[in-house]
Amino acid sequence: MTLVEEILDAKAGEVVIRNVDLVYAHDGTMPLIIEAFNKVFNSVKARAYVFFDHVYPAPTVKVANLQKEIREFARRHGIPVVEGKGISHQLVVEMGLAEKSRIVVGGDSHTPTLGALGVFAVGMGATDVAVVLGLGKTWLRVPESVAVIFEGKPSRTTMAADVMIRLITSLRNYDMNYKALEFFNVPFTADERLTLTNFSVEANAKTALIGEEYDGRNYIKEISFELSSLGPMVAKPFSPANGVEVEKVEGTKIDQVFIGSCTNGRFEHIKRAAEILKGEEVAVRTIIGPASVNVYKRMVREGIVDILLDAGATILPPGCGPCLGRHMGVLGDKEVVLSTTNRNFRGRMGSPTAEIYLASPLTAAVSALYGEITSPGGEV
Amino acid sequence: MTLVEEILDAKAGEVVIRNVDLVYAHDGTMPLIIEAFNKVFNSVKARAYVFFDHVYPAPTVKVANLQKEIREFARRHGIPVVEGKGISHQLVVEMGLAEKSRIVVGGDSHTPTLGALGVFAVGMGATDVAVVLGLGKTWLRVPESVAVIFEGKPSRTTMAADVMIRLITSLRNYDMNYKALEFFNVPFTADERLTLTNFSVEANAKTALIGEEYDGRNYIKEISFELSSLGPMVAKPFSPANGVEVEKVEGTKIDQVFIGSCTNGRFEHIKRAAEILKGEEVAVRTIIGPASVNVYKRMVREGIVDILLDAGATILPPGCGPCLGRHMGVLGDKEVVLSTTNRNFRGRMGSPTAEIYLASPLTAAVSALYGEITSPGGEV
Repeated sequence: MTLVEEILDAKAGEVVIRNVDLVYAHDGTMPLIIEAFNKVFNSVKARAYVFFDHVYPAPTVKVANLQKEIREFARRHGIPVVEGKGISHQLVVEMGLAEKSRIVVGGDSHTPTLGALGVFAVGMGATDVAVVLGLGKTWLRVPESVAVIFEGKPSRTTMAADVMIRLITSLRNYDMNYKALEFFNVPFTADERLTLTNFSVEANAKTALIGEEYDGRNYIKEISFELSSLGPMVAKPFSPANGVEVEKVEGTKIDQVFIGSCTNGRFEHIKRAAEILKGEEVAVRTIIGPASVNVYKRMVREGIVDILLDAGATILPPGCGPCLGRHMGVLGDKEVVLSTTNRNFRGRMGSPTAEIYLASPLTAAVSALYGEITSPGGEV
Repeated sequence: MTLVEEILDAKAGEVVIRNVDLVYAHDGTMPLIIEAFNKVFNSVKARAYVFFDHVYPAPTVKVANLQKEIREFARRHGIPVVEGKGISHQLVVEMGLAEKSRIVVGGDSHTPTLGALGVFAVGMGATDVAVVLGLGKTWLRVPESVAVIFEGKPSRTTMAADVMIRLITSLRNYDMNYKALEFFNVPFTADERLTLTNFSVEANAKTALIGEEYDGRNYIKEISFELSSLGPMVAKPFSPANGVEVEKVEGTKIDQVFIGSCTNGRFEHIKRAAEILKGEEVAVRTIIGPASVNVYKRMVREGIVDILLDAGATILPPGCGPCLGRHMGVLGDKEVVLSTTNRNFRGRMGSPTAEIYLASPLTAAVSALYGEITSPGGEV
């Protein structure tokens, strides 16, 4: 039985109705959810949370007004609003909300991040999230699962982001639509495990899970992934499936580095970047986005904020930062960014002529020092 | 002789040509300066700096493109660009650039901030700044001076902002146009002295200076300002000259507090706010904007970042923050903010229906705890 089948207590392909233990959304998606909800429902039946992480504090009057509307809706329905404390997926983990849940629906495509904690978590569109709010239940077609079984140990310069860029690239011609990725034999830390499930969304997976024991039954595909031979990867514009070894793009001049986001903004990610930046000075503008206020506090306590400021980096308040191109580091025409986020389609972080390369925090940090894409090979 | 006459070596009312020791501008004003410069000049003759403080990191593609243009111009002319390290006026002080200057021209209205260090510093429009860049000189009509002589000591809840709101309010019917404010017998710290000269611009002063000894000669007006009887002040919407004792507006509900800016974003300001917020939790969204990366580093070292994060505040990267309503805390319709900035005209911080109250960092911090305008009287 796949992990998905176990959680949903049904066979792949079946359509089931299930209680949803937790539903959450953010400032970006909540306005449309409210609109859909108000058409049909009067009261909220689900355990719900709203997080302001995408564009907070407000950069425009329009955004400020939308946030006001969300606050009013949430107050009316008794939904807690967590403002500016970090990225929704990270906070759901930190607040212990994920651990207590088996099925979670989020109004954000990267909700499957929670799969690292064994939760069946899916992102849905506004109408479906509104239905979960109103009913506390949802329908689900039980996804088929693809198993990824790791072998060996990653080298000291290989991070979860490298694994995922390689995996996504290798799956580019495979139809992952409405299928789950399930990872086994995972030799990564808690912070990095969340990167695996988070990034799985870019393989077009419906959701992702990390399991303990692989029983091999009912999987429609099995991928053996040898870690020890994998080096740092970079996903070239304009797709995370455009992965190449970092050496293939070394020397590419960059204008900006962003280290953060729901993909790579956790403590370990920023700490590993800081180890590279310690005592050095960045050559290009370097923006650090802690995934939560707890990450930020730990950065203060462990001297990492000092290191980053001394190196010339800009530290943002906790949240999504410039990942979605709406504030705090939007790219101009033809600018090039190396980013630890998970999306690099045309226009994602600003100008449609800007180019986004995706990489791990280590590769991003080393590249920040040289002002061009650089392998972390010789540095760590 | 007034301080202005002494520095400019000329009598009030004369028009003189003088060498400019330093000229600087920021991301907000530099594009128009470049346009004006390029019409007439080919090379920069002045000692010049550019600071990115107003809207950094870029919140839109348009802003990102303007910053690109500024960088290119600056590179061509050998002008240093200081990006995201803090507010221009603060950095000019910290970098020791003010101390070495007698006459400074800035492409920002609050350039007279530097008068606290005995510099004749004036803000000018784009064309005049461009002329300074091209010639290294400018013409100046020597301003008449109004003397402000302090008497007594401020109470422990009275800050420089309170003094200035009171002074500006008392001068509302006096024509300060093209006149200088000169302060004597000033019992404030270095950080607070900069608040006096900074805020003087809102009295419509051409510039402001702090002097040691008042000789009483050549002043067109003399104001004796008794400090010991002054309590906390608030400037109501929509003018800094709408000052009232805080008690008159106590209980006014607020949606946001902003503590920062070139007026009140220095270490002492944030530290005093933190003393209030320590161990408490803010009742409304509270945004802290360190005036420079050095202020920020000191906040980290002295445990103030911890205190502020624990209290639930959001700490912005160094810069102007939401003061000018272009990012990082823009106000929605009918929202009310208590802000330690110096301008509260309609629409300054976002929606034209938003209301901005100005106050000291102490009053702002106490009000953040109660969610309404509150006197710091009982708290410190």
